[in-house]
Amino acid sequence: MVGMDTAHLLVRVLDLVGAFVFAISGAMLGSRQGMDLFGVLVLAFVTAVFGGIVRDLLIGAIPPAAIASWHYLAVAMAAGLLTFWFHERLDRLRHPVLFFDAVGLGIFAVVGTQKALDAALNWPMAAVLGMISGVGGGMIRDVLAARTPVVLRSDIYAVAALAAGLVVVAGFYLELPESLVTLAGAATCVFLRMTAIYWNWRLPSVKPPE
Amino acid sequence: MVGMDTAHLLVRVLDLVGAFVFAISGAMLGSRQGMDLFGVLVLAFVTAVFGGIVRDLLIGAIPPAAIASWHYLAVAMAAGLLTFWFHERLDRLRHPVLFFDAVGLGIFAVVGTQKALDAALNWPMAAVLGMISGVGGGMIRDVLAARTPVVLRSDIYAVAALAAGLVVVAGFYLELPESLVTLAGAATCVFLRMTAIYWNWRLPSVKPPE
Amino acid sequence: MVGMDTAHLLVRVLDLVGAFVFAISGAMLGSRQGMDLFGVLVLAFVTAVFGGIVRDLLIGAIPPAAIASWHYLAVAMAAGLLTFWFHERLDRLRHPVLFFDAVGLGIFAVVGTQKALDAALNWPMAAVLGMISGVGGGMIRDVLAARTPVVLRSDIYAVAALAAGLVVVAGFYLELPESLVTLAGAATCVFLRMTAIYWNWRLPSVKPPE
Repeated sequence: MVGMDTAHLLVRVLDLVGAFVFAISGAMLGSRQGMDLFGVLVLAFVTAVFGGIVRDLLIGAIPPAAIASWHYLAVAMAAGLLTFWFHERLDRLRHPVLFFDAVGLGIFAVVGTQKALDAALNWPMAAVLGMISGVGGGMIRDVLAARTPVVLRSDIYAVAALAAGLVVVAGFYLELPESLVTLAGAATCVFLRMTAIYWNWRLPSVKPPE
Repeated sequence: MVGMDTAHLLVRVLDLVGAFVFAISGAMLGSRQGMDLFGVLVLAFVTAVFGGIVRDLLIGAIPPAAIASWHYLAVAMAAGLLTFWFHERLDRLRHPVLFFDAVGLGIFAVVGTQKALDAALNWPMAAVLGMISGVGGGMIRDVLAARTPVVLRSDIYAVAALAAGLVVVAGFYLELPESLVTLAGAATCVFLRMTAIYWNWRLPSVKPPE
Repeated sequence: MVGMDTAHLLVRVLDLVGAFVFAISGAMLGSRQGMDLFGVLVLAFVTAVFGGIVRDLLIGAIPPAAIASWHYLAVAMAAGLLTFWFHERLDRLRHPVLFFDAVGLGIFAVVGTQKALDAALNWPMAAVLGMISGVGGGMIRDVLAARTPVVLRSDIYAVAALAAGLVVVAGFYLELPESLVTLAGAATCVFLRMTAIYWNWRLPSVKPPE
């Protein structure tokens, strides 16, 4: 019981950490594109919560977690204001931001897959919904900035999220303890993502990106 | 009782007026971009109803009001056809259109916040959902026209909608009569918006818009 | 009873055929834009299922059909991989692809309208939801590729989908057999679409597309 509660608390905290990091990535793009403070905050919030909201709508968890409490809004506002004021310093923190972004991606993918499995979804779609939870925010961020989502044309990003979801699916059917599966899934995502960045792994494409 | 009914009828009528004005703004963008008649009508409808549909999906009011009846469709079609035929004359009516757009924004924000509070949402997210009801249509209009939503980079627009939502929240907790709160919220939005246009108020941004 | 089951099986199979064709159109755009394999698969899946998912969310059919089973995912993956490997040959199959696309459009519009009527929606919105089922995938495909949806600016496409929906509405109120109505609706769409392509019919627009 205590283990369960600790695991859930851990997931909750990590989920907000993920939202914070994603909000920063949204706010940085907004700042760079010359949006005003409000636009920056909107992009921060939307990037942080869009993936999870799509997942919740699709599995019928209404109102979505990111709407039902004000915590995500507060976290996104804090991240947005910090980025707005300190975006020049953040520009220099490229490597830590990439690392935390990978952590956020892993957490979102793991939590999303777990929620989808809890909602009795079939396992391939559960892993896909986990991936959507992870990459959805970045996609809407890029659409609102009127550019093709980078996730559709760049290095191993969504694939790392999908791998995390598949680890969760495997753990679910093997009935492994949830906190172990959470950690293993998120670690898989972070490892794949950081390795892909380090070695500059890319998926094949029909013609090379310009 | 009679007061309640009058208030609800007033809100209903104002909601359709707001949809009409928003539909015009969608149809005008579509016409200017050389879309065909159908594209203009789609943009009119989507601009008029998207914000409210997102709100209804998020609070579980399904089917959304804009889908459950054909009134919004009829209003948007009428606005779209009028704009398609008379768009040159509408181009000259810049000031009245801005005024009615502010009225529509205020009404949508007020009605959206009230619906979210009725669905037992916490008050910060209720005000945010009111704002989304108000600005969502304009955002999807711009995304479909492949440009960054103006609401993310322009003058006090969404902030006026948020202010209207906060007035409704305050009135809700002070248990003020609903018709009074509706009027006060919408008036706050119109006043802020028109003042911002007149004095050219803008929110700060990291780099000035080109 | 047997007739009903055959009709439903037919609709199910045609729905997957429609998803396959739509997935190809998404994958071809992704390949042409230099997306990587993953981006191509995402665009294939999203193009195939987005319209139906929007329809299901709006009528409260949750989880949406395209999420509740893995069949649509599998069909979209197959179409995406085929396109990724053979996209040069597909480029030469312009006419068959246009024909199957019209078939997919008709099927989606017919099935979407039927589902909306079954959910007790009023008939104008049922036909609109059928149209959304048909054109929604193509719209999101273009938004993700950062261009204005072609359906908003091109020849008789959505109008053909709407006509199919109206045939279904008429059949519903005249209580005609469902399999007959399905065929008549889809045939109307294919006929209108192919005729429009052949004669290069276009809707009027305010200014001619460049």
